[in-house]
Amino acid sequence: MRLALNTAKGAAGQTGINPAVGCVVVNDGRIVGIGAHLRRGEAHAEVHALDMAGERARGGTAYVTLEPCSHHGRTPPCCERLIREGVARVVVATLDPNPVVAGRGVARLREAGIAAEVGLLGDESTRLNEAFNKYIQTGLPFVTIKTALTLDGKLAARTGHSKWITGPAAREAVHTLRHRHDAIMVGVGTVLADDPELTTRLSVPGLHPVRIVVDSALRLPDSARVLGAEAPTLVLTTAAAPAERAERIRGLGAEVIVCGDGPRVDLAAAFAELGRREIGSVLVEGGGRLNGALIEAGLADKLMLFYAPKIVGGEAPSAFAHEGPASMDEALRLRDVEIERFGDDWCVTGYPAWT
Amino acid sequence: MRLALNTAKGAAGQTGINPAVGCVVVNDGRIVGIGAHLRRGEAHAEVHALDMAGERARGGTAYVTLEPCSHHGRTPPCCERLIREGVARVVVATLDPNPVVAGRGVARLREAGIAAEVGLLGDESTRLNEAFNKYIQTGLPFVTIKTALTLDGKLAARTGHSKWITGPAAREAVHTLRHRHDAIMVGVGTVLADDPELTTRLSVPGLHPVRIVVDSALRLPDSARVLGAEAPTLVLTTAAAPAERAERIRGLGAEVIVCGDGPRVDLAAAFAELGRREIGSVLVEGGGRLNGALIEAGLADKLMLFYAPKIVGGEAPSAFAHEGPASMDEALRLRDVEIERFGDDWCVTGYPAWT
Repeated sequence: MRLALNTAKGAAGQTGINPAVGCVVVNDGRIVGIGAHLRRGEAHAEVHALDMAGERARGGTAYVTLEPCSHHGRTPPCCERLIREGVARVVVATLDPNPVVAGRGVARLREAGIAAEVGLLGDESTRLNEAFNKYIQTGLPFVTIKTALTLDGKLAARTGHSKWITGPAAREAVHTLRHRHDAIMVGVGTVLADDPELTTRLSVPGLHPVRIVVDSALRLPDSARVLGAEAPTLVLTTAAAPAERAERIRGLGAEVIVCGDGPRVDLAAAFAELGRREIGSVLVEGGGRLNGALIEAGLADKLMLFYAPKIVGGEAPSAFAHEGPASMDEALRLRDVEIERFGDDWCVTGYPAWT
Repeated sequence: MRLALNTAKGAAGQTGINPAVGCVVVNDGRIVGIGAHLRRGEAHAEVHALDMAGERARGGTAYVTLEPCSHHGRTPPCCERLIREGVARVVVATLDPNPVVAGRGVARLREAGIAAEVGLLGDESTRLNEAFNKYIQTGLPFVTIKTALTLDGKLAARTGHSKWITGPAAREAVHTLRHRHDAIMVGVGTVLADDPELTTRLSVPGLHPVRIVVDSALRLPDSARVLGAEAPTLVLTTAAAPAERAERIRGLGAEVIVCGDGPRVDLAAAFAELGRREIGSVLVEGGGRLNGALIEAGLADKLMLFYAPKIVGGEAPSAFAHEGPASMDEALRLRDVEIERFGDDWCVTGYPAWT
């Protein structure tokens, strides 16, 4: 199961709104098949592993990180394939997170006389597919706020100068995060300040996420690099934004989506629309206003804070520029906090405990 | 040497401006003596260990975390005692940090025919006595800024409400820090906001540091708990402060020290005066203005930042309320960063890399 999980992790980020799944088939003390789901619409992990195993799957054990499907989707049900190949035992890390179908795959296997167990490394498999788990249950994308900040919680010096806060190892980790997300989101303030490309730049080619700019008044300039052809770009705005700017931006190849008619983009409506467009995970890369708005609206599922061991002082812009609570008791808390070091920097990861 | 260091660590904080030192004497495969320097003016570590060893020291090896003294100070030189007891070999972690006398103890031992080695666990011994090392070389106290802060670098909610940021484990660690420092320093703003006692409160009795309030205009109220009798209190002010307030505060039992005649306390002059008063280590416990002033003046030796996994937003007061640099490249960097967890919180410790 450890190998199955590691195999699944390797393919994380390339299955779109499908989960990352790994499968290992064992027989007579040997691994006879290894597989991962590599791309939405193509073979599931079990199929690849069983193809590799061939006749050796008969009488063996399949370790699968997610309950095998029992329904016809884009591909035939994996349960039937496991039964047909004569697998004797199936060990599953977690049930299908969709409560409507959870357990059906395991029931189908048992019905066919296969011994099926559930739960081995289950927490780890659940964590691996946290975005998929939310999306399949709610239709909404899993929202991760990523920000680089100083020890004193600032994302730039007082002048706005910010290149770079963190070092190469942390920045590379961020590009891996981009590869693993369906979309990346910034506020137009970040575009105006830094003119980022928002593509995935790693030492090996990676996938570019869809780029999303939150831009209530359509201040996005024609020359913005985020309008380049490397990846699709969505611009979220409001009904109050100038129609001719919307037309112009559409002409430059981006899609303009109206989210509400208030002075600011209705972020809850925006995420619902992104979900409808099969965007299952969004990586938010600041700045402070967008971060703060998401915290105020309770719309973040996860925070990844990359700290550099630096101090820039109280007049520099804060990483979360919302008003915040009157009392420390009402501060937003993160749960399940983990700290991982990247060179001289470190990332604090946690999940908002919305009350 | 590991045992000698652990023994020294146990007594850290109770030797004033003297170093924490441990000694273990070994003979014929057994530990025959263990000692630590427990109190300034009383026996050194070697004396306690040799007293315990008695006749068994002869022909043995002494492990000492700091070079034995060769001069008459408040106590007779330890080198002579080691020679007299017939110790055959002395292993020293670090030389005396005072460059004027470093190496003399080892030279004296070798002159007497004792094999002497230097360097075993040397870095750890140096770190243990970082405050002493600075004080003995400069006459200035070692200054540690300790602050509790949120993930977004704030030390209170926007209203100033701050009790509590961190949880019980981190707060207990802070009281241990108080025990280990000669003095604790706050700005008068912290006194006015929180009215702290600034004593050491642990589950077992500890030592109370001298309390220092930085108070340019002598706004310290008569009723401030920091004026209580549990420990001495020094109030640092300027020549511009009202003389009658100074008289009044002196009448309440505190000492008022004038540091400069500018609008703000001359912190460099203040530390020089504290050094003259044999205060070798100062723990600074905020708030943001004092922290920022120390960073601006380049007067901090170490930072200990206790983070709670909380977010309070951009309008809350920053932990370092100074203007700061214009460019991220000029941000103050910390070196040798370590991260230690305390319950739900964690402490980031580092040393400012002044340029």
